Amino acid sequence: MGCDLNVAELGGPILSGLRVVEMSAFIAAPLGGACLAELGADVIRIDPPGGGIDIARWPLHEGRSLYWAGLNQGKRSVTIDVRTETGRRQAAAIITAPGEGGGIFLTNLPSAKWSSFDELSKRRPDLIMVLITGSRRGGTAVDYTVNAELGFPYITGPEGHVGPVNHVLPAWDAMTGFLAATAILAAERHRRATGHGQQVELSLADVGLAVAGHLGYLAEAQLTKEPRGRYGNYVFGTFGRDFETKDHRSVMVLALTLRQWTALSDATGLGPRFAEIETREGADLSAEGDRWRFRHDIAALLESWIGKRDLTQIGAAFQAAGVLWAPYRTFQDFAASDALRSMPKDFAGQVDHPGLGRYWTVGSPLRFGANQGLPPRPAPELGQHTDEVLSEFGLAD
Amino acid sequence: MGCDLNVAELGGPILSGLRVVEMSAFIAAPLGGACLAELGADVIRIDPPGGGIDIARWPLHEGRSLYWAGLNQGKRSVTIDVRTETGRRQAAAIITAPGEGGGIFLTNLPSAKWSSFDELSKRRPDLIMVLITGSRRGGTAVDYTVNAELGFPYITGPEGHVGPVNHVLPAWDAMTGFLAATAILAAERHRRATGHGQQVELSLADVGLAVAGHLGYLAEAQLTKEPRGRYGNYVFGTFGRDFETKDHRSVMVLALTLRQWTALSDATGLGPRFAEIETREGADLSAEGDRWRFRHDIAALLESWIGKRDLTQIGAAFQAAGVLWAPYRTFQDFAASDALRSMPKDFAGQVDHPGLGRYWTVGSPLRFGANQGLPPRPAPELGQHTDEVLSEFGLAD
Repeated sequence: MGCDLNVAELGGPILSGLRVVEMSAFIAAPLGGACLAELGADVIRIDPPGGGIDIARWPLHEGRSLYWAGLNQGKRSVTIDVRTETGRRQAAAIITAPGEGGGIFLTNLPSAKWSSFDELSKRRPDLIMVLITGSRRGGTAVDYTVNAELGFPYITGPEGHVGPVNHVLPAWDAMTGFLAATAILAAERHRRATGHGQQVELSLADVGLAVAGHLGYLAEAQLTKEPRGRYGNYVFGTFGRDFETKDHRSVMVLALTLRQWTALSDATGLGPRFAEIETREGADLSAEGDRWRFRHDIAALLESWIGKRDLTQIGAAFQAAGVLWAPYRTFQDFAASDALRSMPKDFAGQVDHPGLGRYWTVGSPLRFGANQGLPPRPAPELGQHTDEVLSEFGLAD
Repeated sequence: MGCDLNVAELGGPILSGLRVVEMSAFIAAPLGGACLAELGADVIRIDPPGGGIDIARWPLHEGRSLYWAGLNQGKRSVTIDVRTETGRRQAAAIITAPGEGGGIFLTNLPSAKWSSFDELSKRRPDLIMVLITGSRRGGTAVDYTVNAELGFPYITGPEGHVGPVNHVLPAWDAMTGFLAATAILAAERHRRATGHGQQVELSLADVGLAVAGHLGYLAEAQLTKEPRGRYGNYVFGTFGRDFETKDHRSVMVLALTLRQWTALSDATGLGPRFAEIETREGADLSAEGDRWRFRHDIAALLESWIGKRDLTQIGAAFQAAGVLWAPYRTFQDFAASDALRSMPKDFAGQVDHPGLGRYWTVGSPLRFGANQGLPPRPAPELGQHTDEVLSEFGLAD
């Protein structure tokens, strides 16, 4: 079994032998590339000299972009001026260079003639090109516009708040990046079976729509009479909410399953009080739907129990009983906590980044039992691998 | 070129020939399975008779879960009672059945002995098993607890709001699901090259941490003196915010690039007023950083311009100039809009769902140029394919 492919020796990083050329900006495409690089693919990012449009995006440190550094971890960086004929020839040659794991191009930049699938596949007919756009018809859309159009900002944020509340996490971007990685592996599988390459397209807006569909938001909007409201930090359809402790910390507490609900009753000793709600309301709080319907009654009891205790005490009681909960933390709290220090070195470690210093850096969350993980690596300096790559592909002057 | 693999004829759905058995609940694992099913894989979900823990999750319609229906689109459903010896034998036989594209198991359920990688791989040594957990050490964690611990709830929500603000979109779940699809394709690539299977693990918490790292949030928390604040609907480090129109609609307006900034100046005629800010403050608003620093001044001018005009008028001006913007909509508005109707049928269509009725249903956002797309299909009825699958695998009584 097994064909003689140019992939890793058993045990090497899982995507060894794959070469992806990336011309990209912002989040989705770079994150997709980083995801593949961290699994062992050789990801070569080509930028214009001086950097692309995202080279200086905030947050900055010492005048350099922490954002760019994070999204380009583990890649090789080549700078080429594709406004020149020589530059276009070089870029096209790198993208379409021979090799079984090569000929894969990931981009979200507007297609010029030279970088279109039609032109590039003349040079390498089995080219795989993954093209990420904002909207399906190629229009500009970003995480914030996709989110605005779908409906999430009207159900996010404090109860009673008027107007939309954006989420800060660029969730659609990140999902699109991971789907681009899936697309590359699916197309490469097909290519090895048939010898044929292809263009794969996906748009941020379509990803948003597909996820809203799969999670039932669209169906609910069409079928149910009462639109879903804005319920603050309550988790819709079950029991979950934030509470403040006596020492003014916030905790998130949930009871999605019967086991978790029992644990919460046990940990707090509120079982008899919950039973009173059941008797009074004719409710069955062992059912998720009733925990949602009577969430305010449940929350009032918990608010009082949690508000009388410090975080440490609550944590101990919840831990012992198996309650589903977490303390809220700021990013600063998180970075200073033991959470990072307790991670294995092939997932999170202190890494030196050129021009930025040493800081906790995180790699791929995927753990392959039979393949070596790669420890997190810094992003390259812009253009760091230009000479190396040009000479590797026989393109040096 | 190309090995003789049991994959699609050229042009069929891209993942034809792949068979994935899923035992799952909630979002991440089912979404990963749906993602593969929509690309042509045969995804068989095994549930206990009566359904698993997520069979009745809200939102409901006619007593049935729209959530379950969305997350299980295009799969086959088998019910087996794995508390019985016969049930365990049947489930293990389906998971480890022969066939080159088979032997792939996706799960997020707590591992019992019979369903552990060690046991299952005795039956099929090249088994691929993707195991999703809450936290790395197998502890329970869900989207809301991961989010609480990382830091996003303290930078999300209205400026000046006290306390955490959860995002409603289960973003970590969705990303984990898509990464599980990536993991399966990577492991299957490795298996075809080496003949070896393996277990792949990933946790919701690790996905959150990795994404927070790649987006620069962790680095920022460690390196910069002033922690990132809560900036409401402003987009950090650039220009973007929501505005209210004269007819009380909300619009999201951004200027991330110089071209978008110029477009915004042109569309509104506010160029001279923006220049006044530059002169007064010694700013250069063509730079993203300065658009962020002087966001309040920019926003005040836009607030007034947008507040004097209706949505239609604003939309026309913005569209003509190429401004990056979007109207905010509710899910109801979205579902009733032309957006769904204008989509090609292989991405979004009116689909009949057993027991739920007919509604707009969305498929995979990935468009493979050389492979047929699959139109969105409903989720199966629970147990709909039990007899079919048991007989297919020679397990019928």
